[in-house]
Amino acid sequence: MTVKNAFYAQSGGVTAVINASAAGVIETARLHGDRIGKVYAGRNGIIGALTEDLIDTSLESAEDIARLKHTPSGAFGSCRYKLKSLETHREQYERLIEVFKAHDIGYFFYNGGGDSADTCYKVAQLSEKMGYPIQAIHVPKTVDNDLPITDCCPGFGSVAKYVATSIREAGYDVASMAKTSTKVFILEVMGRHAGWITAACGLASEAAGEGPHILLFPEVEFDEAAFLAKVKATVEQYDHCVIGVSEGIKNQQGQFLSETGLKDAFGHAQLGGVAPTIAQLVKDKLGYKYHWAVADYLQRAARHIASKTDVEQAYALGKAAVEMALAGKNSVMPAIRRLSDAPYQWDIAEAPLSQVANVEKFMPRDFITEDGFHITEACRRYLSPLIAGEDYPPFRNGLPDYVRLKNLAVARKLAEFKL
Amino acid sequence: MTVKNAFYAQSGGVTAVINASAAGVIETARLHGDRIGKVYAGRNGIIGALTEDLIDTSLESAEDIARLKHTPSGAFGSCRYKLKSLETHREQYERLIEVFKAHDIGYFFYNGGGDSADTCYKVAQLSEKMGYPIQAIHVPKTVDNDLPITDCCPGFGSVAKYVATSIREAGYDVASMAKTSTKVFILEVMGRHAGWITAACGLASEAAGEGPHILLFPEVEFDEAAFLAKVKATVEQYDHCVIGVSEGIKNQQGQFLSETGLKDAFGHAQLGGVAPTIAQLVKDKLGYKYHWAVADYLQRAARHIASKTDVEQAYALGKAAVEMALAGKNSVMPAIRRLSDAPYQWDIAEAPLSQVANVEKFMPRDFITEDGFHITEACRRYLSPLIAGEDYPPFRNGLPDYVRLKNLAVARKLAEFKL
Repeated sequence: MTVKNAFYAQSGGVTAVINASAAGVIETARLHGDRIGKVYAGRNGIIGALTEDLIDTSLESAEDIARLKHTPSGAFGSCRYKLKSLETHREQYERLIEVFKAHDIGYFFYNGGGDSADTCYKVAQLSEKMGYPIQAIHVPKTVDNDLPITDCCPGFGSVAKYVATSIREAGYDVASMAKTSTKVFILEVMGRHAGWITAACGLASEAAGEGPHILLFPEVEFDEAAFLAKVKATVEQYDHCVIGVSEGIKNQQGQFLSETGLKDAFGHAQLGGVAPTIAQLVKDKLGYKYHWAVADYLQRAARHIASKTDVEQAYALGKAAVEMALAGKNSVMPAIRRLSDAPYQWDIAEAPLSQVANVEKFMPRDFITEDGFHITEACRRYLSPLIAGEDYPPFRNGLPDYVRLKNLAVARKLAEFKL
Repeated sequence: MTVKNAFYAQSGGVTAVINASAAGVIETARLHGDRIGKVYAGRNGIIGALTEDLIDTSLESAEDIARLKHTPSGAFGSCRYKLKSLETHREQYERLIEVFKAHDIGYFFYNGGGDSADTCYKVAQLSEKMGYPIQAIHVPKTVDNDLPITDCCPGFGSVAKYVATSIREAGYDVASMAKTSTKVFILEVMGRHAGWITAACGLASEAAGEGPHILLFPEVEFDEAAFLAKVKATVEQYDHCVIGVSEGIKNQQGQFLSETGLKDAFGHAQLGGVAPTIAQLVKDKLGYKYHWAVADYLQRAARHIASKTDVEQAYALGKAAVEMALAGKNSVMPAIRRLSDAPYQWDIAEAPLSQVANVEKFMPRDFITEDGFHITEACRRYLSPLIAGEDYPPFRNGLPDYVRLKNLAVARKLAEFKL
């Protein structure tokens, strides 16, 4: 049998469990030495391939690779860098082939979200369009949970568990303080266009009066008057009001409520700071004392409160990607398929990359209550299994004991390439 | 033996473990039915005493009281309300005596920080100044860790564990993203005047280059030029920079870097939002891409990542308070006494309230490095045992299963009292 090396890289915003997918890829590849030689990781995603900056994962011990399963972040470095089109930037693709040839790479595993699926899709076309035989498999990952076809995305379940846990805890706190102090608490969460993380906050509210009382989704246009009326009614009934808000909510003019003006490499506006904007509004119009929190990276890096389901799926998808490659597949993504809600059952299906790249999945309208301020039972049924189970990392000196790999470079064989 | 009822209340900002102290008080009192009748909890702190709004904790099951040990927030409601002086507001003290008499209360347990110790101290003087026999014992609690005499304060160890865990996780995240995206991450933490929580962030950095790289303490005047130089040097060396900043840092004119203008009931400015201010500064002066988080209530309510040491001490101090009362003490506070750093050993001593009320304990200068931007080994030796051990709450449906007590009111016997 022909033995080819594999390339693996992480792309886009990292998560609490993307390294579990890496462990799934590497451990499975190691079981198939008759087909897969070494797994080379790209240092900082596709940039590592373009610049021939490859990490030799075969130099990492089995123990350290196993520790990836409980380590958040991207162990090999990630990137926000999207390949341009083959038509306008042919030299990028020629370079990739040059690097793949030099290092005998026949498998390409790319671990990312929708933008990264586009990069993986382009690499998958190298076989057909440029005659270089490669099998490109996308390993899904995104806290935003907005990839199509797959029932959910690794990374999301753990963020969901984190935000639901955190807003429940903060809700208990505010309820204690409301008599003489804080009446309104606002937690800003991620989710630029899709409200999945905001929706997950809603799981914390299991009984009448229990926070969060209001959720502000990016899918629902922000209606200031309706919002303020809801806050007032909630405080009058329960003496406090807990609010979960997406960083991406927009006003009736279609503008983000808080916009820094910065844009990331993909051209998306960099957001943050809608919580203080909402807080100020509540204070100005209703006079309530408030507190607000912005979880930012804390939410997606919170491996200490990861969902066991999420960790298992992240690993399983990494494993499945290698198995699909071994089965001769190209241009596909292993996807979670839900078989039943309760008991929760799932397996892994195959999604064509052409249907994944650059497609965003938003919250269905029937997951949001009619008034636009909370989640429905259908949404709870969907979300609930995704946060099930705890999978605590080991602790040392009172803190999570995460691994840092050696990340030793493969010797370069080619001339430098300017990005 | 005379049987008297006890009053217990929670005051000031709540914590992840103040309810563990409540469990310590109530469970210990239940063991001494020959001396202590019922434990009445004040609904919303001392306000519950003034307004005769008492909760009959004897109606709560042993199971639910035990569940307080893993439930954050203040189960009976807290308050930010400080008794005025006996000279100017004699009617408040007369009212307290009226309520205590009506409900046969001979023990007063007040669970709070420095301001609350002042309230407890005033109640303790009722015996001497107004002839009403009461034993007032303060149970220490404050995430700020700024009470004198006691080696540490319940609530702090858990916040410390939360912020150190969180900033470690976010640090791993930023390191992954730095090549093409975020280079600077800023976490804003609590600690209005004392930098203990900020210092705890520093525990996450155990190896060279590991974040947080910079800590900004309220005890150290913010020097913009020195700070920016340090950020620049850190990014140049490690490609990223992780910063922990206290909400209470001040500029060279003595002004809070971020001030909302609001004041709480104790007259303290309500702070928040220094992280975005620092982020903007970094962007304007150095041009680095940034992310920031404000943990706010999330940090002090995070029972899911509480320190086992902290939970044990919180419970032990509640228990000790009752034992001191049974030993005939008045106007005292049980305090943690450290016997050794490693192995960590501690016991409980007795602190006179006259030396506790209204005294704040700041970080010693030798706990902060000479450049003012990090913690010293001495500080690590002090902090490290306080975050030791995990004490996870039970989970249900993927979320921490916290208790809500019935909180049934004791029948009123007196006329209404206007606060």
